[in-house]
Amino acid sequence: MSYGQQTQRVMQAVRSKISSRALEPGEKLPSIRGFASTMNVSPSTVVEAYDRLAAEGIIFARKGSGFYVSPKTQPFSVAEIGPLLDREIDPFWVSRQSLDTGMDMLKPGCGWMPADWMPNASLRKAIRNLSKADDHLLSDYASTRGAANLRRLQARQFAAEGIEVDPNQILLTGSATQSIDLVCRLLLRPGDKVLVSDPCYFNFQAILKAHQADIVSIPCTRTGVDFDEFEQAIIEHKPRFYISNSSLHNPTGVTLSPQSAHKILTIASRHDLILVEDDVFAEFLPETTPRLTALGGFDRVIRLGSFSKTLSASVRCGYIAARPDWIEALIDLQVATSFGGPSPIATELIHSCLSDGSYRKHMEALRRRLAKTRREVSANLAELGIQTWLMPEGGFYLWCSLPEGIDSADLARAALQENMVLAPGDVFSPTQSMGQFMRFNVSQMGNPITYEILADVMCNL
Amino acid sequence: MSYGQQTQRVMQAVRSKISSRALEPGEKLPSIRGFASTMNVSPSTVVEAYDRLAAEGIIFARKGSGFYVSPKTQPFSVAEIGPLLDREIDPFWVSRQSLDTGMDMLKPGCGWMPADWMPNASLRKAIRNLSKADDHLLSDYASTRGAANLRRLQARQFAAEGIEVDPNQILLTGSATQSIDLVCRLLLRPGDKVLVSDPCYFNFQAILKAHQADIVSIPCTRTGVDFDEFEQAIIEHKPRFYISNSSLHNPTGVTLSPQSAHKILTIASRHDLILVEDDVFAEFLPETTPRLTALGGFDRVIRLGSFSKTLSASVRCGYIAARPDWIEALIDLQVATSFGGPSPIATELIHSCLSDGSYRKHMEALRRRLAKTRREVSANLAELGIQTWLMPEGGFYLWCSLPEGIDSADLARAALQENMVLAPGDVFSPTQSMGQFMRFNVSQMGNPITYEILADVMCNL
Repeated sequence: MSYGQQTQRVMQAVRSKISSRALEPGEKLPSIRGFASTMNVSPSTVVEAYDRLAAEGIIFARKGSGFYVSPKTQPFSVAEIGPLLDREIDPFWVSRQSLDTGMDMLKPGCGWMPADWMPNASLRKAIRNLSKADDHLLSDYASTRGAANLRRLQARQFAAEGIEVDPNQILLTGSATQSIDLVCRLLLRPGDKVLVSDPCYFNFQAILKAHQADIVSIPCTRTGVDFDEFEQAIIEHKPRFYISNSSLHNPTGVTLSPQSAHKILTIASRHDLILVEDDVFAEFLPETTPRLTALGGFDRVIRLGSFSKTLSASVRCGYIAARPDWIEALIDLQVATSFGGPSPIATELIHSCLSDGSYRKHMEALRRRLAKTRREVSANLAELGIQTWLMPEGGFYLWCSLPEGIDSADLARAALQENMVLAPGDVFSPTQSMGQFMRFNVSQMGNPITYEILADVMCNL
Repeated sequence: MSYGQQTQRVMQAVRSKISSRALEPGEKLPSIRGFASTMNVSPSTVVEAYDRLAAEGIIFARKGSGFYVSPKTQPFSVAEIGPLLDREIDPFWVSRQSLDTGMDMLKPGCGWMPADWMPNASLRKAIRNLSKADDHLLSDYASTRGAANLRRLQARQFAAEGIEVDPNQILLTGSATQSIDLVCRLLLRPGDKVLVSDPCYFNFQAILKAHQADIVSIPCTRTGVDFDEFEQAIIEHKPRFYISNSSLHNPTGVTLSPQSAHKILTIASRHDLILVEDDVFAEFLPETTPRLTALGGFDRVIRLGSFSKTLSASVRCGYIAARPDWIEALIDLQVATSFGGPSPIATELIHSCLSDGSYRKHMEALRRRLAKTRREVSANLAELGIQTWLMPEGGFYLWCSLPEGIDSADLARAALQENMVLAPGDVFSPTQSMGQFMRFNVSQMGNPITYEILADVMCNL
């Protein structure tokens, strides 16, 4: 490829990022050196490309600080939307690598358990029963809230946690991610701020970006958050809501103590802040802990979750539990944007599995298996100098610090060459300050070669 | 309820509409008289409520023109989001009435066929096979584009229409509605304009509103659109895209002729306009007609659709076919907002049914049945003075004009009291100028009592 072609390629990559909103107006462009390495060209090629784009008015230079996207770009024309294939390690990196690479890949970075850890026997039985279901269930749209039997079951589960909720306060959705997206549609407008912990689930960042919201973050501590920092951030930035996992926080594994939950609620109440509790890992805890909804009810807390982690990620279904008036507004939004919630077939399968006595036994065995696996993997990683930051009370993630001098993004890039998908710390970090951390999925690390490859790759960095 | 309480209730209803964005900043409030009737209070109560809200600065009066939402409302507090239960006839009216009312209701207004018109035998067979599927299919997430076998099948179907498309140019989604939503996420920013026909599918308006886009409309003609008006609207409003159904337009039943498709493409090309072709009813046509994609390829046309109308609305799956670079950006958006596309279980069921020889026979029989039913229903309606605007070449909708002096919203409200859901013209009309029209679903009108109720209700209006 000639020098001119390379420059064109870099220019096109930047245009694509702007068109696709990977780069927003006013946002800083990647550094010359960094982007040169990403695009596998010389820094001078990037300088040339940036200069030409600046001449076109698409970006502009700020003295001594780098290049920025022009505040008001023209509406892009058809020709300007280019490929997004030159992918940096951004919040999508882990998702797309995990979802699209073959089954021959090792995936300590992915967010689910191996297929043979899941309750497939129970699901097969549910599918056989489904083939005899009523015509309406097989061919009609769902009601706008989703299947009533599953919502009643959920309400009973909430009741077991001491949370009183009417089944009509529960809205079934396509997934926990869609639940978050709907909540964002209800509560956010472009430019609004949202408070998250640092690190946090990488897709929070991707969704919030899709809504053109600004992220404000406070450091995640071993008990949740620092309350002074939490309150200070609320006062200073006036976020629309705080979103987090109260149980088995992704990626760190932190579970809020009842005291922490109470304190967070008290502060939120003082500043009229909405709390969004993403509860997707709660079922992995050996005991039910009082979460935000359990203490504070639904006055200002929205709870959401799914069945993807414990039952099946193939059967798509999530939920939102919230105040009745918010549920009404969320129903309209879901009708507008998905024409209703999850497939009646999906909700029927989930209801069958959850009502099946074998499911509870499966979960008990799974929790024991995961506890053992967490200890073993943590010990194996320690031998490589990779230290578990906090041993979680449940689930399949370990948040670990790497040996001194090893950058997790470098490690993830190198591991990919060896057919291994990792989840480097910075994809979880709004402040990009988690370069020394890596999230490991212990359920995906049963093959001893995993550790050999990790050792080799670290050695050669 | 006391007068003061009634005023409070009206004020709360308006606040809710603003909080939930049913009313946008700058938008005109419902008329005093209209809202009084909706809320079942006296006009003076509404005047009082509007005056108090104006005193609070939430709305303002424009001399001789009515009340408007203040341009910059404060970020709403938790307390301000109120119920949306007092529902006017808006684009959600038909969806929510159709989806949530019981099976004992008559539903000439709904958007699907009765369960026993659908290919359930084929679906049951597919479900039985599914119970023997691989563990991975039952428990894992899909790849980011969705099942390869279904995309290959789709690509072959496109090829049969003369459209060359790589299976990787097809993205599977949760539904056609989600396809539209993703396209909006890719192409729209708040304040952008979008061109639609008047009337158009009511959910176009709901989705575009959710994206804070402004709707520009041109009248729908019996051959599609008036080309001069189409070009004039593009020049004047610079819309980001034009979205329509090329085949069996909802609600009118118009199918673009090849000449019209060519002309629309030529004009779009002249002004660099993106065309979004919602193809959800195409399979109901007896013959494949050249649609926009068939003539123009994917340079500026995005095609989308689903399997909900012909196969099952319970098995949720839609698709988008577009340029490879746009598909890449859409994948990111779908990962961010739904963590991937449709359930692998759903795509497997659809692939099974479509590959099953009996499906084609089912569709042929269905087209014959619908053709006969359209003629019969049209004749029955004509006896009531309800005239078919255009006899469509396929599908289950008839767009009809009502007898002189009968307003379709009034008729729909009155029919609801008689347990019948209708689809009044104005829910399809961005300009609210279709009050004399009604959309009828012929497949839902097999019960002779339907016509008796219609006659009675019209008589008593």
